[in-house]
Amino acid sequence: MVTDRPTHHEESAEIPKATLERLPTYLRYLILQLSHQEVLVSSEELAEVAGVNPAQVRKDLRYLVQSGGTPGVGYEVRHLIFEIEEVLGITKPKEAVLVGAGRLGSALVQYPGFARYGLDIVALFDIDERKVGGKIGEKPVLPLSKLSDLPLRLGIRLGIICVPAEAAQGVVDLMVRAGIKVIWNFAPAQLQVPSDVFVKNEDLAAQLAKLSYYLAHRPQASGVPPAPADLDSL
Amino acid sequence: MVTDRPTHHEESAEIPKATLERLPTYLRYLILQLSHQEVLVSSEELAEVAGVNPAQVRKDLRYLVQSGGTPGVGYEVRHLIFEIEEVLGITKPKEAVLVGAGRLGSALVQYPGFARYGLDIVALFDIDERKVGGKIGEKPVLPLSKLSDLPLRLGIRLGIICVPAEAAQGVVDLMVRAGIKVIWNFAPAQLQVPSDVFVKNEDLAAQLAKLSYYLAHRPQASGVPPAPADLDSL
Repeated sequence: MVTDRPTHHEESAEIPKATLERLPTYLRYLILQLSHQEVLVSSEELAEVAGVNPAQVRKDLRYLVQSGGTPGVGYEVRHLIFEIEEVLGITKPKEAVLVGAGRLGSALVQYPGFARYGLDIVALFDIDERKVGGKIGEKPVLPLSKLSDLPLRLGIRLGIICVPAEAAQGVVDLMVRAGIKVIWNFAPAQLQVPSDVFVKNEDLAAQLAKLSYYLAHRPQASGVPPAPADLDSL
Repeated sequence: MVTDRPTHHEESAEIPKATLERLPTYLRYLILQLSHQEVLVSSEELAEVAGVNPAQVRKDLRYLVQSGGTPGVGYEVRHLIFEIEEVLGITKPKEAVLVGAGRLGSALVQYPGFARYGLDIVALFDIDERKVGGKIGEKPVLPLSKLSDLPLRLGIRLGIICVPAEAAQGVVDLMVRAGIKVIWNFAPAQLQVPSDVFVKNEDLAAQLAKLSYYLAHRPQASGVPPAPADLDSL
């Protein structure tokens, strides 16, 4: 009988029921603090909110991977929100935010095909004052400053970038800070991200260039279709 | 000394200089006939234009692959234009036409990234009377009926489809008839094409769905990035 090899289920079950029940209380308070631009939270504050003592709060939070607070300083609000959302499984993998309410961003947010997969781009962000406050399709255009808390508040982990190349890295840095873990990048730019963030580059110009190259180098009017191997790489 | 193995250069050189010099004359006449909606052309007509006899025209055109006319019927105008453009190398692999002047089509035609590769979408086509005759960016919006001759007249072989799924096959059929050989398809539809036409499907919804799936199934907050093999397949 094997008893010393914990399964994934057993590992998850290590968090006591009482701790799990307190996590939503911590989360509501943390999101409130986030909206007040608070960076750190102490175990004393969380203890008061949850009606337990600070030692219990510290014990609860030790169950959260990578959430370790700094003694005498406190816990990082954003990080704790992210970790609690992950543990509670309340993230929304089918919702996304999009930055760059230009032509491509506007086209994507109104692209009817996404609904087929239950996907939803819930909001656009832009720095253009003339666009902010308005709507594109049914979706609000929010100021870029709002990007710092909206994905965390809503449990969104998917971000789409439709800004010019030179603005892309700045947007990525904001997204990473806001808890975004998967980025669909339409800007023709190579982006630097932490190792736990995945970027899928969608370089439309490079794609069309590949098709153009293929066209220029295909067998000329010979009636013989090109080898499938060549096509797959496009 | 090897003399019996023709090189590619020698094969190309098989078309006599005098024939090559007559091809542009044939082409100009054929394009004129195309704009008059003529379907067939006879060797007698071409002979008169070029100042040679019909037998010489038939001999000239036998050098063009797959151009074989039907005795007593004539040569197909579109096919002959296509073949002459290929032989003369006057096709433009960096120019494209786009069908569907909606949001996505409008975004693509004005996408600044294409210029980096020297790529140019020269015109949009649409069936919407309110759009036809206008411009998007610097590019004219033409009636879909014009699609039948513009790519052939300009030596364009690259087509982009941004119409709803249910309209896509009809557009593809028009493109194929107009000599388009490589199609970049943004409509979420599987398209039927002849074997010498290549379609690259760009299903944006499927792409976002894949990222969403990856997000939902990635290792949860473990700090271990997913294996590169998983990422490459996205």
